[in-house]
Amino acid sequence: MTTEKMIIEIKKWLMEAAGYIRVSLTNELTVSQKSGRTDLVTNIDEETQSFFIKKINQYYPNDRILAEEKGYDTIDSLTGRVWIIDPIDGTMNFVMEQENFCIMIAVFEEGIGQLGFIYDVMKDELYWGGKNRGVFLNEQKLAQPNDVSLSKGLLGMNAYMYGKNIHSAGEIGHASMGIRVSGCAGVELIAMLKGNHIGYISNLSPWDYAAGLVLLDEFGFKYSNIEGKPLTFTKREYFLAATPTAYAEILENFI
Amino acid sequence: MTTEKMIIEIKKWLMEAAGYIRVSLTNELTVSQKSGRTDLVTNIDEETQSFFIKKINQYYPNDRILAEEKGYDTIDSLTGRVWIIDPIDGTMNFVMEQENFCIMIAVFEEGIGQLGFIYDVMKDELYWGGKNRGVFLNEQKLAQPNDVSLSKGLLGMNAYMYGKNIHSAGEIGHASMGIRVSGCAGVELIAMLKGNHIGYISNLSPWDYAAGLVLLDEFGFKYSNIEGKPLTFTKREYFLAATPTAYAEILENFI
Repeated sequence: MTTEKMIIEIKKWLMEAAGYIRVSLTNELTVSQKSGRTDLVTNIDEETQSFFIKKINQYYPNDRILAEEKGYDTIDSLTGRVWIIDPIDGTMNFVMEQENFCIMIAVFEEGIGQLGFIYDVMKDELYWGGKNRGVFLNEQKLAQPNDVSLSKGLLGMNAYMYGKNIHSAGEIGHASMGIRVSGCAGVELIAMLKGNHIGYISNLSPWDYAAGLVLLDEFGFKYSNIEGKPLTFTKREYFLAATPTAYAEILENFI
Repeated sequence: MTTEKMIIEIKKWLMEAAGYIRVSLTNELTVSQKSGRTDLVTNIDEETQSFFIKKINQYYPNDRILAEEKGYDTIDSLTGRVWIIDPIDGTMNFVMEQENFCIMIAVFEEGIGQLGFIYDVMKDELYWGGKNRGVFLNEQKLAQPNDVSLSKGLLGMNAYMYGKNIHSAGEIGHASMGIRVSGCAGVELIAMLKGNHIGYISNLSPWDYAAGLVLLDEFGFKYSNIEGKPLTFTKREYFLAATPTAYAEILENFI
């Protein structure tokens, strides 16, 4: 199957899953805790993940899957074609706000990001793109944001890292025009792609950043773990993404 | 003029101002600093305020006005009928994000809030209501949110207070399900009115909270300065608003 057909297929799956998620918000959710009282999962996270896994197994039976919920949250390597999926990114927002959450899907081949999709379900805004394809909002091609310096822009931030000044996150925030905390990696990555925010500092798992990296690459943003080393795709890591100028300023002056 | 006619009039002004603001985003803004590098004002803040002042002077020539921008930012008392206006609440977001900002208008009589309007311009969502009238989103009456405790809900927060643990804001945030930082008082107050957030802690001027108080009253939320004393409407103050249960928990356990 060509990549063009794959894109069409993935978009169809996203719309189908989003329709199901929207309807689910009119019913009672089944909410459980994972690692602690603020780390939630719902029946809808799990059912949405199962939906995507079933589709991938049906259409691409030889591909492998790394995904947030149980049984799929580790992978031994990125060899071959790997799908990296967060069925509901921002589950806390999904439960508490019924908005500001995303579906994220990335397709990697031999460790290289090929396609990325971040879908803000309640806004019905799909940010997507692929290697050497650019970035689109729904069907409209987006312009590359300006390379703004740290002191001139807003920074998406993980609240805990900011409050505890982990890896100087508090000081980095103060050096910016201000921090924003949305509670959703997808929402923060979208804010960068739109040029609204110059960067994002958080503590993320591969499914939180994989789709974003494909799109950030297209716009020349820089990213790594907070110490400037490559992201491993194997664990939760302190994550930094920013415009080239702000990225360099952060690593040189604060880390 | 009856209050009903006043409501219709204010809504017309809001739509006219919002139309102008949306068009203005397609042009270059003139941005200036006020108290410091992260305290911004634009030509559109000032022009929008002038628009409302002209309308009020024309229709209600005996009323007085308290508003964010120059010349109108103090008032000696709340006697008589007073309009309290923030032409663009969240100017930083207006400049950087071109979204997540609000127009806020309150009408007070003899110190009592009578009408409140919070208009999320880019979402085209007008939250409004009045004393004993309830709260509406556009023309739809909203249900009163549940009285959720601190440990069970999300809390809107001022980033600086959280980071510096001012009045225990950091500890209060950790006791909640999580904090969110939008950079706009109107957006945070809307999140409470929708039942998405259980409270909001920030450092606010009267025009940042006046419209919100009218609407919070209708839903039985509690508010005060962060020490539990009445808001003065004369200066910037540390502000606390929350569900009755969370409000009591915060004052008893943290302040």
